Amino acid sequence: MSRVRYPTPNSRSTLLQTLAQGISKVSECFEVTGVGLGVPGLILTQENKVIFSPNLRVIEGIPLKDELEPKVGLPVAVENDNNAATWGEFRFGAGSEAKHLLFVGLGTGIGGGIVMYGQLLRGAQGAGGELGHVTVQATGPRCACGNRGCLEAFASGSAIGRRAREVASERPGSALGQLAAERKLLGEDVTDLAREGDEGALSVLKEAGRWLGIGLAGFVNILNSEVVVVGGGAMEAGELILKAARREVQLRALSPSRELVEVREAALGPDSGVLGAAALAQDLTQKEYALDS
Amino acid sequence: MSRVRYPTPNSRSTLLQTLAQGISKVSECFEVTGVGLGVPGLILTQENKVIFSPNLRVIEGIPLKDELEPKVGLPVAVENDNNAATWGEFRFGAGSEAKHLLFVGLGTGIGGGIVMYGQLLRGAQGAGGELGHVTVQATGPRCACGNRGCLEAFASGSAIGRRAREVASERPGSALGQLAAERKLLGEDVTDLAREGDEGALSVLKEAGRWLGIGLAGFVNILNSEVVVVGGGAMEAGELILKAARREVQLRALSPSRELVEVREAALGPDSGVLGAAALAQDLTQKEYALDS
Repeated sequence: MSRVRYPTPNSRSTLLQTLAQGISKVSECFEVTGVGLGVPGLILTQENKVIFSPNLRVIEGIPLKDELEPKVGLPVAVENDNNAATWGEFRFGAGSEAKHLLFVGLGTGIGGGIVMYGQLLRGAQGAGGELGHVTVQATGPRCACGNRGCLEAFASGSAIGRRAREVASERPGSALGQLAAERKLLGEDVTDLAREGDEGALSVLKEAGRWLGIGLAGFVNILNSEVVVVGGGAMEAGELILKAARREVQLRALSPSRELVEVREAALGPDSGVLGAAALAQDLTQKEYALDS
Repeated sequence: MSRVRYPTPNSRSTLLQTLAQGISKVSECFEVTGVGLGVPGLILTQENKVIFSPNLRVIEGIPLKDELEPKVGLPVAVENDNNAATWGEFRFGAGSEAKHLLFVGLGTGIGGGIVMYGQLLRGAQGAGGELGHVTVQATGPRCACGNRGCLEAFASGSAIGRRAREVASERPGSALGQLAAERKLLGEDVTDLAREGDEGALSVLKEAGRWLGIGLAGFVNILNSEVVVVGGGAMEAGELILKAARREVQLRALSPSRELVEVREAALGPDSGVLGAAALAQDLTQKEYALDS
């Protein structure tokens, strides 16, 4: 795998120029037959346009495929980053033997993607796969989306950090409490302290894992998936979250779905999105990727 | 549409005999090219066998397709009754113009089915579409499935009856309370009293509708459906439930999915399953129904 990296561009023209430059750079050493873009935002399938990207505002409103294809003279596949990660884990990662797979990305928020019958299912507009925004506790805390009690409000990296700050104030003598006295606790601190054996940090991750499992049990009942792959930054905590999630799936999902499903950690780490986008470009070129086109 | 009806058989051999007899009866007047069975139970796709049917125990373990096909000399499609109803509403009913549709059946329990890209999605084993068994309030009441806080425990006909009995004891002077003093309240009583304007009954249906909407909002975020069709016996209450459900979907689902989706009452009533099963048999004969086969 060959990589080039560029700082995030801050204007529309620099963005397209930078993308074209990156592709041209890679083309110097490799024969490039297609381009796959994994974009942190909502892409309307019909228009191939990014309509909402809270963390990369510059990209909003750009019909990326239409603008980039003539610039680079190659077919371009544009996909939501979580869908790209889903496709990466499905093609090369933790679910490469399955035909029915779910991907859940635990980052600042929670995103996801669905593969059934070996096809990426985006829904009518390409807006599906929002696995983080399913209510698991209707009376629960406010979510970033405005709703209450979404899975994201309980099991994302941000939710883990928020819960850790609460636990730190309840247990000031714990390692979590002592660190909180020095600076603002983040999700990643919880994993570090849990690995050192801090009970408070361990309980925060276990609780997040239980909520994750409550969500996954519902998804499994709806979709009867063979494999659920959990990735994203919060998966640094790995089994400290997943063990509790698996237990909850076994308690809550229906038979025979619960006996079939395996909940696994993502195998490709931060590369699932990159590899998935590349595979989508390739599959597009080979016209294998066409359930809805 | 031509109908013959038989009492529910109580043994395996009578069941198969009765089915064969019904098909032969219809064949006297019509040219029959295929048979579709909508079965109230869990059917494993690979084995075409009903493995779990709590309300029709006699059918459990029978490989219906394999046993019936040689008996009647016709191709037989076996499908879960909610999946059949989904297919009926998709082909002939409230979602016949859509390609991405969800069906939710509010009966004693809650079942459902998923159509995406014009295909019925059953999942890896055929056990998907269990839309009633998704947790909407993790600390909520116990569900018939053993889990806590499933959508079914809040918005099914049984849940409506249970909640009505609670409200009746809180408001003994209301019409609900007076009827409850005479006999056990059922879900259908609530609809009758709500239509007569009883505030307690209206509030029970509205509350069930809100919970339904909380569930639907999650489904819409996952699947980006164009149409959600709500059917089943509890749809006697129609807009008394659906109005609150639609409002909750608008409050809780993400854009642009929430602007796209329409929540509609089933158009075929109790016939959606029958017509859906027939259409499945026809589509099977024409080999159009084959995403996973």
